[in-house]
Amino acid sequence: MSTSHRYCVIMCGGVGSRFWPYSREDRPKQFIDFFGTGRSLLQMSYDRILPIVPKENIIIVTNARYAPLVAEQLPEIRKENILLEPARRNTAPCIAWAARHIASRDPQASMIVTPSDHLITRESIFEKCVLTGFEFVEATDSLLTFGIDPVRPETGYGYIQVGEPVTETISRVKTFTEKPDLELAKVFLESGEFVWNSGIFLWSASAILSALEKHAPDLHASFEQGASAFGTDGEKAWIEQNFQSCPAISIDYAVMEKASNVYVQRVSFGWNDLGTWSALYDNSPKNQAANVTQNCRVLAYESTGNIFAVNGDKLVVVKGLNDYIIADSGDVLLICPKSEEQRIKLMVNDAKIAYGEKFL
Amino acid sequence: MSTSHRYCVIMCGGVGSRFWPYSREDRPKQFIDFFGTGRSLLQMSYDRILPIVPKENIIIVTNARYAPLVAEQLPEIRKENILLEPARRNTAPCIAWAARHIASRDPQASMIVTPSDHLITRESIFEKCVLTGFEFVEATDSLLTFGIDPVRPETGYGYIQVGEPVTETISRVKTFTEKPDLELAKVFLESGEFVWNSGIFLWSASAILSALEKHAPDLHASFEQGASAFGTDGEKAWIEQNFQSCPAISIDYAVMEKASNVYVQRVSFGWNDLGTWSALYDNSPKNQAANVTQNCRVLAYESTGNIFAVNGDKLVVVKGLNDYIIADSGDVLLICPKSEEQRIKLMVNDAKIAYGEKFL
Repeated sequence: MSTSHRYCVIMCGGVGSRFWPYSREDRPKQFIDFFGTGRSLLQMSYDRILPIVPKENIIIVTNARYAPLVAEQLPEIRKENILLEPARRNTAPCIAWAARHIASRDPQASMIVTPSDHLITRESIFEKCVLTGFEFVEATDSLLTFGIDPVRPETGYGYIQVGEPVTETISRVKTFTEKPDLELAKVFLESGEFVWNSGIFLWSASAILSALEKHAPDLHASFEQGASAFGTDGEKAWIEQNFQSCPAISIDYAVMEKASNVYVQRVSFGWNDLGTWSALYDNSPKNQAANVTQNCRVLAYESTGNIFAVNGDKLVVVKGLNDYIIADSGDVLLICPKSEEQRIKLMVNDAKIAYGEKFL
Repeated sequence: MSTSHRYCVIMCGGVGSRFWPYSREDRPKQFIDFFGTGRSLLQMSYDRILPIVPKENIIIVTNARYAPLVAEQLPEIRKENILLEPARRNTAPCIAWAARHIASRDPQASMIVTPSDHLITRESIFEKCVLTGFEFVEATDSLLTFGIDPVRPETGYGYIQVGEPVTETISRVKTFTEKPDLELAKVFLESGEFVWNSGIFLWSASAILSALEKHAPDLHASFEQGASAFGTDGEKAWIEQNFQSCPAISIDYAVMEKASNVYVQRVSFGWNDLGTWSALYDNSPKNQAANVTQNCRVLAYESTGNIFAVNGDKLVVVKGLNDYIIADSGDVLLICPKSEEQRIKLMVNDAKIAYGEKFL
């Protein structure tokens, strides 16, 4: 099949509060040059898909407030390819809209749906996997998800239990699981039967729309009312009036965990969802003292295992600090043990209670 | 004696590197509003002496680079009362100049010489002590230093061993001592015979000039060459040509430790030289978690005994940090245990080696 029917949907509407204050509501994680390469995570996601999908078929879905950031970071994306959500409604409404939008342009379309804030280090392997995935979903009318071969007993991810193989790398899905505790994660890892749920999906537009009709009838019905608007000048207005009444629900919960035509492709392309400071630490180059210095100047004395994420032209001097996050965004400084990072969301909330929106 | 012969010399040329990065070369400690009262330490020193010495007799000696800061902070001081040192030469040349300057204006002058970066909490007691001191030196042609009744076995100060009393509060000096180790400091404290050397001096201009002639003949000879310039339009030019060839030597070493007419007045007016972060911590109001938050917004979780000194409108969030200094000046962030503060000078030096003058 020609690549002209292949589309990519990059979802980039998240707020990234776990990386606060490095990630801020007005400039979340996906818009940050996390690795000091000169490209933000969103730009890296775009760069990665560009050899696979025609540029004019790359669709960005984001929150309306980030329209200027997307335009700034991806000036080559045409305005009609940027879908602006008027409200946050998780992934199912986002994907329902994108699938309608694409199907109205090309009923034969197939599509990859990907988050914008993950790290993928092995781009050439990624490219081969995506091509394999496209060929499968174009031939079989199935819903495919990428399952990452796990490399540690991670408790921060959902897992997929791999079922009966249908090709060398693609299998039926036995079950989707919630985030396990450490003990269970170890069992999953040792069994060889479980992979990480990457949140990257491939399917034809018609297959996901059928699945939504079957498994998420309310959401389907809502979009069905606006069916005639998609692909026309009326699409934007319809979304602005109706999108926020959609239920906030994930595509996993709405469709993937229910549908019978769900498959998983085992992949290993150096993936990390960068969901936590620890994950970022683990995936970043370290200096001799095992510190990660995220784009900043650090003089560290008797200090090891830290991650420094400091915006701007700043010098950080630390003494006697081990395994901490030191994040400075200019008007907020956070100093927190890596082991306590799950509490950062609560701290953001406390900051909101104390100071309103100022430091979010 | 009328107060019109009484002068005050406020020395404020220091760089305050022990408080780096809160104190910076271009805005040292004495120019900072350390306690968030709206007045810098220099301004507090000025305010404190104003009820005792006529305003037109208050002389500021500082480094030439700080002339704009002094003018900004003490706009009521006339320009001819600000002596600008072209180089740092410790206290003896500074005092020699100030004494010559004052003597040229008023041969009968008596003077108090005081640092600008100390904390004195009990101003009314200070005032009484200074008046007592002035009366003594005006009557006796002696060199008087304020000795602070010690309240802890401090190892950061020099001590004075108090000798034979000559009035209720004033005694001969037996010895000046170097900074003791903790064991010796405890012995000093228990003995009741030792007081802290405050670095605040009183004398008549003629007495200190005589003492300099006798005990620091080189320094005296140097200034003697310019004798005719002091009090004339030529003073500034003479200083600019000759001051930097003066030996860098303290008044304690040059005169006080050698002269026989040296006296100490025991005082207790809530003095702290604010020489270290720990001293500042000890002397600052603490919140419930025993943290000192120096003019900044702090959310602290499981964190106690810290001192936060953060410039600007910034939020600091810390978790699991105890007994640290957290100092942020905008382009430098320092995180260092209070117990390791003596290493800050070395860190400043390392920063200089790595980045030049940029972060000093």
